[in-house]
This record gives sequence, C-alpha cells and structure tokens, in this order.
Amino acid sequence: MRDLSGRLELCAMNTATLGYQAPIADTIDAIAAAGYGAITPWRRELEEVPVETVARQIRDAGLAVAGYCRSTYIPAATREQFLANIDDNRRAIDQAAVLGAASFVMVVGSLPEGSKDLADARTQLAEGTAMMLDHARAAGVRLSLEPLHPMYAGDRSCLCTVEQALDLCEAIEPEPGPAPDLGICVDVYHCWWDAKLKDQIARAGAQRRIFGFHVCDWLVPTRDLLLDRGMMGDGVIDIPTIRGWVEDAGYDGAVEVEIFSAENWWQRPIGEILDVSAGRLQTVC
Amino acid sequence: MRDLSGRLELCAMNTATLGYQAPIADTIDAIAAAGYGAITPWRRELEEVPVETVARQIRDAGLAVAGYCRSTYIPAATREQFLANIDDNRRAIDQAAVLGAASFVMVVGSLPEGSKDLADARTQLAEGTAMMLDHARAAGVRLSLEPLHPMYAGDRSCLCTVEQALDLCEAIEPEPGPAPDLGICVDVYHCWWDAKLKDQIARAGAQRRIFGFHVCDWLVPTRDLLLDRGMMGDGVIDIPTIRGWVEDAGYDGAVEVEIFSAENWWQRPIGEILDVSAGRLQTVC
Repeated sequence: MRDLSGRLELCAMNTATLGYQAPIADTIDAIAAAGYGAITPWRRELEEVPVETVARQIRDAGLAVAGYCRSTYIPAATREQFLANIDDNRRAIDQAAVLGAASFVMVVGSLPEGSKDLADARTQLAEGTAMMLDHARAAGVRLSLEPLHPMYAGDRSCLCTVEQALDLCEAIEPEPGPAPDLGICVDVYHCWWDAKLKDQIARAGAQRRIFGFHVCDWLVPTRDLLLDRGMMGDGVIDIPTIRGWVEDAGYDGAVEVEIFSAENWWQRPIGEILDVSAGRLQTVC
Repeated sequence: MRDLSGRLELCAMNTATLGYQAPIADTIDAIAAAGYGAITPWRRELEEVPVETVARQIRDAGLAVAGYCRSTYIPAATREQFLANIDDNRRAIDQAAVLGAASFVMVVGSLPEGSKDLADARTQLAEGTAMMLDHARAAGVRLSLEPLHPMYAGDRSCLCTVEQALDLCEAIEPEPGPAPDLGICVDVYHCWWDAKLKDQIARAGAQRRIFGFHVCDWLVPTRDLLLDRGMMGDGVIDIPTIRGWVEDAGYDGAVEVEIFSAENWWQRPIGEILDVSAGRLQTVC
C-alpha cells in the first residue's frame, strides 16, 4: 500500500466536501494551494462558467481531474423522461471529456416517483448505462458506476453493492480487455459494511475496473442519512484496510475525499476543511 | 401466496410496534382482541413480571408466540464481557422456552466501543452463536438470526444481509436435516434493497431456515436511522412480492408487524395502531 505521508499529490479533493462555498475558480486555487494532486468537480459548479474555462483553470493550477460528478438519475416513470435523462448524461460525458476527467461518476438513481418496482429500475439502469457507454467510448471517457449505501435504495441508487455493480459491468461489457470503459468507484462510506467487500474488490481489480476510491467515515451515531458523513478518523470505518485491498487489486489512482456534512464540516472555512482532510489522509487513511 | 384477507390469525404483532405504552398484560389483551393470531414480546416487558405469568396470559388470550425479542449484543471488547453476553442470552433462551416462542430473535450487535474491526466482531458472532445454539437445542428453542440493514453495521449488527446470515448458519450448523435449529428472520425493512434477495430467500427456504417474516415499510425520505419506519403501504417496499418469495420458499409462519416509529405511530393509541396494521396486512401486504 502506498504511503500517503508527504504525498498529497496522490490525493484528490471532491468539491462537495467544501460545501460549494466558493466559485469554482476559487475552489480550484484553494485545492491546488493546499497541495492536492487532483480535483473532482460537480456539474452544478459549471453551470455559470464554460467548461473549457474551468478545464483550463484546473490545468493551469497543476491539478488532475480525478472524476466528474455526477450522472443524472437514469430510471424514470416514462420512456420520454428516461431518454431525456440519457441525453442529459451524454452532455455531461462531453463535459467530462473536455475536463479530461479520469472517469464520469455515475450515481444511478432508483425508484421513479410512485414506483415500488426495483427490478424495473435496475432494468432501466442496465439499458441506460449501455446507451451511455457507447457515447462515452466515442468521447474517450470512462464510466464509473458508484454503488451507494443501501439506505439510498429508495431514492438515489438501485445499485447497492460492489458485487451488483460488477455484475452490471460484466453484463454490459463482458470482454473489456485490459482497459475497460465501464468500471466502478469504491467509496468506503457506501460499502464498508459488506462482508463480501474484500473479495469483490479483488474481482474488480482483476478486471481493472476500479476507476475511483473515495474516503470519509461512518459516524456513530449518524444523525442524517445524507448529510452526516464524518471526516476520516472520526468514525468506525477501517479505512487503511480497505485502501489496502483496493491497492492490492491494482488501483493506483487518487485517494479522494468526499464528505457531505451539512451541520459540521460545511460550516467551516474551506481552508480548514482542506487542511484537516490533508492531515487525516496522511495519518489515518 | 396466502390470502391474508380475513385471516388475521396468520399475523403477529411485535409489541415494539405499540411503543411499549402499556403493561404487557394489557398489550396481550389488546392484540388478542384485535384478532391477531400471535404476539412477539420483548425482554424489557418481562422485567417486572415472571415469565411464567406472561406465558400463561398469552396462552389464555389464545395467542401464539411468534418470536421473542431479542438477544443481547454478542461482540465485546473483552473476553469477560463476551462470555457475560452469552450467559445473558442463555437466560433469554430459557425465557423463550417458557413462552413457547417459535424462535428467539437474534439482533447480533457489531463493533464494541473503540473498535473498527468488523472481521473480529463477525468472528465473535460466529463463536457466540455456536455457544448459544448448544443451549438453545437443550431448551428446545430455535435461534433466528436477523440480518439488519447495513446502516446499522456500526453499532447494532455486523450481520447485514440474508446471504451473510445463511453463510453463518451453514458454517455453524452444516447438516441440520429437515428441522434446523439455526435459521433466519427476514424483515423487509432490512433487506428489501438487496438484488440477491429473491435467490437468497429461495436458498433459505430450501434449507427450511426461514423462522420469521417481518413487515413494515421504508419511507422516502427516512428522517431517522432507527425510529422512522413506516406503516405497510406508506413507503416504497414491494411487500407482496417479497412475501411471495418467502412463502414460495415454504414459509408458513406468521406475518409479523414490527414498526419503530417514535414521531408518528408511537404517538397514537394502541388500538389505532393495531387497527391500521390489521387493515394494511389484509390489503397491501
């Protein structure tokens, strides 16, 4: 396993961690000044600024783009809405290409309003991902399916485990060769509980399908399902063990900090969040 | 699948659903008067009353005992505490025997204070369950492992999926014959999200290991990780489909209502909770 001490260039900052407190230009400068090697921006930050401008700012700051967040939810109540979701994702993939993102991060969505049919949501997910993959290949962008914690199965993700994500990868891209275009993002928050995690990470690594690795921590107690993630070291996840599995599986990309924390970290200055994250990355991850 | 309409005798009420508003004697009478066929009491309700008294009250009311809740958490920071937890569970198993409970429900616990070692918690779980099983067999009580939703992996359950629970059953009791003493409880709240659920329920059924079936609903949004379960029909779980899988797998025991709802249902009179649950059991489950 890589020693992250003094190697902040191996680490990425997901801009959501900073709570969107500043315009993207300032966020880029702050992340670069703090010594991180990469950034993962969100689409909402590019609504007011041309993507080419942001791409240049990131390059000029010396940062790589670890990922681009995130897909519009795929499953929909109507075929028309489903197709609109895919179209929207194609536009985002084009942006990811301009940014030079290592992957486009897919948070896939789940039950459309009024539906209880998880199986149908998963069928739509498979079809939609296959449609996106064609576009992504043409654009030179890898798609990174991010299984979310099962507590988001109702509204945010019908993709709940690494195993399920890999099953989907194999169904859509059965013989990818040495450089798959469809892979997964392993976020410790979403999958730390899974008794099969070690084996599934090894499976993903053997297929070279690990496109991203996210860290934060699981707080006990957790007070909000969405916005109470912890800073690395403040919770109960054994992050070094999971990072060891991921790197033993061949992953050599960025270790990315992604923390949604409305009541705690998002209330603090960006500089403090960046500094504390940097310290924890080098000591407890 | 059984038609529950007019068949409330096939249904059980878990007393937690009623918010422990009344003494156990009154709770028993109310559940029987509402027409349910079975009750699942909690240990906390038997602290002030001899178990023999409660067992007689339940019998006199014409109710069966679907389950007895629940085990003391097994994993501990010290060997001494671990052994004390097992001893405490043996006493509870003896109570379950007096009650004539169809099974003793095991909520297994997870990380001891200060630990991040899920693998160790799972090792303790396996050892402790095996120790309890010897005692349970002697007492004539079946042990029902209840995998909890992965959002409880930090503090309440290192047993997170039906698959994991069955793996544990097979490891501890590899050749159970036609009447296993170790099985599982399927609670839709904990496992509805799982893409492998249908197959794992079939696996459990083939081994005759389904000892209990619990219903409630997953609300969107869910406002509290522990105490915001929904009444059947108010959320997004496709309960009839899952009940169909369970009954196709051979389960013919009670359909049990277990709802933790501090801000909503527990604020209502017991009679209302019983009536609404009865209605929903017969229409949306």
